[in-house]
Amino acid sequence: MKVYFVSDGTAITAEVFGQAMLSFFDVTIKQQSVPFLSTLDKAYGFCQQLQEEAEKGENTLVFFTISDPQIRAVIEGCESHCYNIFGDLLSPIEKALGVPAQPNAQKAHGIKEGIYDGRIDAINYALANDDGASVKNYDEAEIILLGVSRSGKTPTSLYLAMQYGIKAANYPLTEDDFNTVGLPKVLKPHKHKLFGLTIDPERLHQIRTGRMAASKYASARQCRYELDEVEAIYRQERIPFLNTTRLSVEEISTRIMADMHLSRNRG
Amino acid sequence: MKVYFVSDGTAITAEVFGQAMLSFFDVTIKQQSVPFLSTLDKAYGFCQQLQEEAEKGENTLVFFTISDPQIRAVIEGCESHCYNIFGDLLSPIEKALGVPAQPNAQKAHGIKEGIYDGRIDAINYALANDDGASVKNYDEAEIILLGVSRSGKTPTSLYLAMQYGIKAANYPLTEDDFNTVGLPKVLKPHKHKLFGLTIDPERLHQIRTGRMAASKYASARQCRYELDEVEAIYRQERIPFLNTTRLSVEEISTRIMADMHLSRNRG
Repeated sequence: MKVYFVSDGTAITAEVFGQAMLSFFDVTIKQQSVPFLSTLDKAYGFCQQLQEEAEKGENTLVFFTISDPQIRAVIEGCESHCYNIFGDLLSPIEKALGVPAQPNAQKAHGIKEGIYDGRIDAINYALANDDGASVKNYDEAEIILLGVSRSGKTPTSLYLAMQYGIKAANYPLTEDDFNTVGLPKVLKPHKHKLFGLTIDPERLHQIRTGRMAASKYASARQCRYELDEVEAIYRQERIPFLNTTRLSVEEISTRIMADMHLSRNRG
Repeated sequence: MKVYFVSDGTAITAEVFGQAMLSFFDVTIKQQSVPFLSTLDKAYGFCQQLQEEAEKGENTLVFFTISDPQIRAVIEGCESHCYNIFGDLLSPIEKALGVPAQPNAQKAHGIKEGIYDGRIDAINYALANDDGASVKNYDEAEIILLGVSRSGKTPTSLYLAMQYGIKAANYPLTEDDFNTVGLPKVLKPHKHKLFGLTIDPERLHQIRTGRMAASKYASARQCRYELDEVEAIYRQERIPFLNTTRLSVEEISTRIMADMHLSRNRG
């Protein structure tokens, strides 16, 4: 079985939808995205490819979103299982909204004309304020992630910037911070923006060993010590925190957005 | 009109699908994600909130994906327009695949148990190899992006890493490179991995002015000069390239994946 995610745009929507749909099934499936299928020629070519695969006995499944009605008709006419992911919902949504769908509408993952992509600013901010690099910019931060080295701060900051346009700084808690009473001074004025990450000591030991084997830094004892200390700080200072051990970057980020009442920055 | 994207997981699938669906309509809509709606209590609470909004005359629309059948039933029973985004397609897909859907299946955006998230490695790689920082690691790169300063290399490298687990380095082309014949020496052994970015001079002038107004670096003349030079290099060396002016990071990245025949790294 082979599955295609097809679109005249990026095919990201078809891919996200199709993969989520397939996650309900316990099957192993080859997957391929076919973005920018935006001419009739390309559509006919794709149909022919499906037909050749069918003749070789390959089963194929196609999830598609196509704005152009003519191109859509070609794909719908293919001899394969082709599913328009919006198909059955479009007309109930038209009714609910009380306006008709536009045939050649704005692409979901394109750039909005005339609106500057604020995510680029947010990404630059996350890079400039990674790992405590520049604490003087914390006034501008919407959130400041705390945690020990390798607890997931950097990927989370970048995901928050990339997906939501959120300006996220991150500050590494180290032994220097454990030996002072209360919060590090640079963080005090920003307490309402702080969010802590933690992780299981065994997992941290494993990650740090991959980076610097047989070091004090990677030792199980050191990992346990640092995590005990940061969790004590989070509790004492009533900083909300999350254990990232069994969570993907997507899950960590959506939980933070919800817990900190952050909302996506548009444009 | 207010739209909710609801899930017992991250709600990313519901949000991507719902936003793409709404992009067909020329309406202004308040949007809110409701992730981790994973208990019956939370489901009843959400239904009550919808009802209160309805009583205030607010129209609401709900796009949802919920694995747990009991929680799903509560949401389906709400007095609002609630759409299960997988609803109508699940049974045709079951037939096409020949296996039944699992009621409490793997979450689409969760972590795969026992599989290390290779994207973290790819993100660390992109950060360590940003802006020509460490050309000695180019053997490990799957792609090396070229371009002048502020043509979109960094966000694109990070998106390729975050979404696809692709190890993307990037190398800034500067006046030093224009004055030598042929490709910079460090790039020569990796010619098959090179991909060029370019951008309209007016747009580059605007971006650089935002960063360093009234500098030679930001001047229209300098922008035009640098872009003429890099495009000449791309053509001479037959390096595939793309103008990023009117493209989102998603569009740039999916085009590169397709043009360079790269595929998503899994686990």
